[in-house]
Amino acid sequence: MTSDPSIPQDGRRRVVIENVAPQVDFGCHPVKCVAGDTVAVTADIFADGHDLVSAVVKFRPEQTTAWEESPLELVSNDRWTGEFTVKEIGRHIYTIEAWIDRFKTWSSDLQKKIQAGQDVAVEMRMGAALVEEAANRAPAASAETLRQWARELAAGKSATGRALLEFALDESLSLLTSRYSERHFATTCEQDLPMIVDRERARFSAWYEFFPRSFSAELGRHGTFRDCEKQLPRIAEMGFDVVYLPPIHPIGRTARKGRNNSATCEPSDPGSPWAIGAAEGGHKAIHPELGTLEDFRHLIQAAESRGIEIALDIALQCAPDHPYVKEHPEWFRKRADGAIQYAENPPKKYQDIYPFDFECGDWRALWSELKSIFEYWMAQGVRIFRVDNPHTKPFSFWEWCITELKKADPNLIFLAEAFTRPAVMRRLAKLGFSQSYNYFPWRNSKDELTAYMTELARGEASNYFRPNLWPNTPDILPMYLQIGTRSAFATRLILAATLGASYGIYGPAFELRESAPLKQGGEEYLNAEKFEIRQWDLSAAEDFSDLIARVNEIRRDNPALRSNHRLQFHPVSNDALIAYTKSNEGGTDTVLTVVNLDPHHTHSGWIDLPLGEFLPDPGTTYQMHDLLTDARFLWKGSRNYVELNPVISPAHIFRLRQRVRTERDFDYFV
Amino acid sequence: MTSDPSIPQDGRRRVVIENVAPQVDFGCHPVKCVAGDTVAVTADIFADGHDLVSAVVKFRPEQTTAWEESPLELVSNDRWTGEFTVKEIGRHIYTIEAWIDRFKTWSSDLQKKIQAGQDVAVEMRMGAALVEEAANRAPAASAETLRQWARELAAGKSATGRALLEFALDESLSLLTSRYSERHFATTCEQDLPMIVDRERARFSAWYEFFPRSFSAELGRHGTFRDCEKQLPRIAEMGFDVVYLPPIHPIGRTARKGRNNSATCEPSDPGSPWAIGAAEGGHKAIHPELGTLEDFRHLIQAAESRGIEIALDIALQCAPDHPYVKEHPEWFRKRADGAIQYAENPPKKYQDIYPFDFECGDWRALWSELKSIFEYWMAQGVRIFRVDNPHTKPFSFWEWCITELKKADPNLIFLAEAFTRPAVMRRLAKLGFSQSYNYFPWRNSKDELTAYMTELARGEASNYFRPNLWPNTPDILPMYLQIGTRSAFATRLILAATLGASYGIYGPAFELRESAPLKQGGEEYLNAEKFEIRQWDLSAAEDFSDLIARVNEIRRDNPALRSNHRLQFHPVSNDALIAYTKSNEGGTDTVLTVVNLDPHHTHSGWIDLPLGEFLPDPGTTYQMHDLLTDARFLWKGSRNYVELNPVISPAHIFRLRQRVRTERDFDYFV
Repeated sequence: MTSDPSIPQDGRRRVVIENVAPQVDFGCHPVKCVAGDTVAVTADIFADGHDLVSAVVKFRPEQTTAWEESPLELVSNDRWTGEFTVKEIGRHIYTIEAWIDRFKTWSSDLQKKIQAGQDVAVEMRMGAALVEEAANRAPAASAETLRQWARELAAGKSATGRALLEFALDESLSLLTSRYSERHFATTCEQDLPMIVDRERARFSAWYEFFPRSFSAELGRHGTFRDCEKQLPRIAEMGFDVVYLPPIHPIGRTARKGRNNSATCEPSDPGSPWAIGAAEGGHKAIHPELGTLEDFRHLIQAAESRGIEIALDIALQCAPDHPYVKEHPEWFRKRADGAIQYAENPPKKYQDIYPFDFECGDWRALWSELKSIFEYWMAQGVRIFRVDNPHTKPFSFWEWCITELKKADPNLIFLAEAFTRPAVMRRLAKLGFSQSYNYFPWRNSKDELTAYMTELARGEASNYFRPNLWPNTPDILPMYLQIGTRSAFATRLILAATLGASYGIYGPAFELRESAPLKQGGEEYLNAEKFEIRQWDLSAAEDFSDLIARVNEIRRDNPALRSNHRLQFHPVSNDALIAYTKSNEGGTDTVLTVVNLDPHHTHSGWIDLPLGEFLPDPGTTYQMHDLLTDARFLWKGSRNYVELNPVISPAHIFRLRQRVRTERDFDYFV
Repeated sequence: MTSDPSIPQDGRRRVVIENVAPQVDFGCHPVKCVAGDTVAVTADIFADGHDLVSAVVKFRPEQTTAWEESPLELVSNDRWTGEFTVKEIGRHIYTIEAWIDRFKTWSSDLQKKIQAGQDVAVEMRMGAALVEEAANRAPAASAETLRQWARELAAGKSATGRALLEFALDESLSLLTSRYSERHFATTCEQDLPMIVDRERARFSAWYEFFPRSFSAELGRHGTFRDCEKQLPRIAEMGFDVVYLPPIHPIGRTARKGRNNSATCEPSDPGSPWAIGAAEGGHKAIHPELGTLEDFRHLIQAAESRGIEIALDIALQCAPDHPYVKEHPEWFRKRADGAIQYAENPPKKYQDIYPFDFECGDWRALWSELKSIFEYWMAQGVRIFRVDNPHTKPFSFWEWCITELKKADPNLIFLAEAFTRPAVMRRLAKLGFSQSYNYFPWRNSKDELTAYMTELARGEASNYFRPNLWPNTPDILPMYLQIGTRSAFATRLILAATLGASYGIYGPAFELRESAPLKQGGEEYLNAEKFEIRQWDLSAAEDFSDLIARVNEIRRDNPALRSNHRLQFHPVSNDALIAYTKSNEGGTDTVLTVVNLDPHHTHSGWIDLPLGEFLPDPGTTYQMHDLLTDARFLWKGSRNYVELNPVISPAHIFRLRQRVRTERDFDYFV
């Protein structure tokens, strides 16, 4: 009989695997984690009928073929769980494999039959056959052990005269049999699930942004990379581990913008670093006034020696003077009059910027060239890129570009600067961006912060979207900072640094508490550094720098603050006060941050904590150690009082410490 | 320059489609609907940059290649919505197509530029090129219209002298251009999404189950199909549209079970119809005492003439006497002693049942043969199958079997009898079962019913899992019915019939309110009809049959009760009272059911309704028409009083009626 061609090849795979977590869009996009993470896996796994199932999670680096595996256990109601630890960085693949476990089924059935006093002679012989089959797949030593057991099962009695139940269900022999049994008709997930394993800095980082040109020692001279090096000790002392520089390339002259984004430009105006490209070169060149390629490499090394990485800004757009415009006119869109189409968001026109035409006929060459920009700077030692407006370039380009670059160096970190709609921001993160700017600058009240940070830390997107929280950027002076007080800046700093495992500041303007907007009601800086060279007197910021240093030190010392996964908000009886905890994976470190969101007034209130989650013995007194001030408080029970005067300190960053001894620990207590 | 082979072919597809609904497991399984349904589709659709996107939903029967399409509209924040109406039954495919709409982008940008007073001469020429391109794809008449417009745009002025804005943005010409513009680099969903379109009975049906052998006119004689025909008028009068018969095949003799599931069997005991197969034949034969194949066909026709379909029970298992056992011993598992493995759930043994071995070497032939059982009965005119214990046969078998059978006849309806764990029940529904037994028999209290029915009607599974609610079955006499009063039976009947678009009763035992369990604390019937021939005196049930008939009439008359999609529970100030509404798609029919769940006592309470959803003018008086008793109540506002004496009637089934005229409708009111 010829068989029906509509019958599927794998019709004997009886096990079903569904509802696997973590995963992103059914495996279309990678889940993200960090080397050393223990990844908890869950799935619904079941088969028809009463047979018992066994299941493992299998994982491997993408470029290898040998799987590692670890067992899954049934929790209840077809829900299985397990975990695996990722050691190496790079792209990984994982899947679940599950099969009808004939031996386990036999063993479980046998136990019930023996307990019910049934005759199991035939069952013993059936078990012997299963053990024999395992023996045929086992290495010699184990095979002999198994064969001996099989013989005893077939005979229906133990050589040592053990009781039937005990002998038939011998645990070590069962385990051995299971190990070497064939996984008949095993099922795996419908598709392999991808995972990006990054180094820890992709998740836990503190960024400091500044414009090199403003750091000349002499008034009027353009700052250089050599000048930047002088800033490193101070930045390292503050505890930052990433220094991010705006674009360092030659700046266009045609249609250059003047100070405060003026359409008319004075000859002395330096222009915006994002207007990239001039006669001196484009994206692979250095603005001559900053120094040489050699100087840049030296800066990278100087930073590295202080534990700091230099992040470069990559803005894939051209000033009209960019060499690409002449060399590759086919990469730009033409207007009906033959001119190149400048950037616009009608009715606004950006005549100093030419966007690339990603729909052009020569798009493949364009993609290759743009990728080579990253490769050029990787060759100089750069491993972190902040990408300007990635949402104005095709998603498919980023997916390809980041994936290919990270194949070459999985240490790479990409920060997406896409202040746009949520679906677009999430998509960029799914495609491979390691970190993302987000709406933190506009989340100020307790309910806003609670809802948004809960969504980011615990929502579905937390599998792939890693927020980097910025209280300010050269483009954004939020309303809250326009308050201008030290307390306002301290509040936003502490929120960013404790809510976000990654955060950053546009440093000099933040330290010096710049708070004047270009226009009332707007969020652009007055005399924005984007359009002019500023001189910053950072000696005036010393007191504030100390606070920053203390906050970064707390972040480094407390593993709880290294990720957002266990962020949890807690009720406080006053809406001006916000309270949240983070804990590390093992629960050995718990940090409670309480912030007074009102920079003007002292507020107090009662905090409720789910103590059972944090303390082995929630009934006894515990110590709250304020890591900002080193003050210690003794708390008892779940409800406790806090009071914060923003002028003194707008926040507590408490570490929970359970007392380690009592009177019972003293010798005289008998 | 040869291009990088890692660059994807479709790199210029700039639009992304995500988060499409409805869909099941990313398109792995079909969504279910019914012919005539309007399917609402939503998706996140977006592209990089500022260009505007257009999108359509496309759908077609699976076996055709020509798509129909209907437009999607942007709601907000990248969320798009639209709908399409399915007309034909059968498997369908749908997807979304979206593209950068160059003309729409041009038109929108132009409007902003004109409003800002900018010079748009170049823009007009660019628009002319886009219109010209559309003209090249348009049929002759439209092409000429478009070319004329393109000429005018290129010239920068209208032939009729209309104002620039009005002429450039002429709506009819814009629509024409959009229609014929090429969809450059259009994106579709990652995979086509499957959909099963059934006839309405797959969703809206009332089932009546009985054992033909108990309906002989003479005591002691085995009932026949001819006897069954005599029951049809009564069943049709009660308003049922499906009559479901337990298996009608020859019953095995070896290890036959006696009355009350006794292991010893008297010679006169008829055995369980689920012990299929004897010398007289197997799954394609008829138990001789029921009559001939001709009689069976006659029964189907007699039922059809009264609007009733006969549903057959298919139980894929064999009695030891089944011809398959001799003809295909390879389809059964052998024990170590060479005997065939009987069914067991250790320590329980079912020696009267041999399960098929779906892992056997000859599994393909087994699959084909099992499918042919359905085909055999389809050839006799059966279109509805109730499948016994489908969860003890492989999922992949059902997926294949149902899909193939429905290709041959999309009118088929399959009811899955799988009382098992939720994931298993859902999986069977995903694979193609049209309806499913469920936990309704064990959901009795207000909170249980509310949670469970909300999950079934509005949860994710509502896309594919259609519950069929049974207050009782030959296997299940729930605790609630053991109360035994008319009110208890009436309550469960009304709940099943109004909560479920599909419901069914094991008829004679229900009508006659059988309430004695085999064992106290158990849910098996005493003297279960599964193991013996019963005689039912249904004349004693007349009063209750009238209630059933009234409930079924209400179901037929009210489109609101034909689906579960808009089921909504409402607060009542008394936990013994449960209240819920259903509305039809257009909102022209709303039915409020209020049930007293306590069969012993009168209860009253206040109901709160979200009137704005149901009435055009929630501020005025409306009529509640109790369709059970024909009583009418005038209600006003959202909070109203109900009182139910279960001995009189345990429920109201209200139809909401807004008054249609007031004093203002009379002539004398001026």
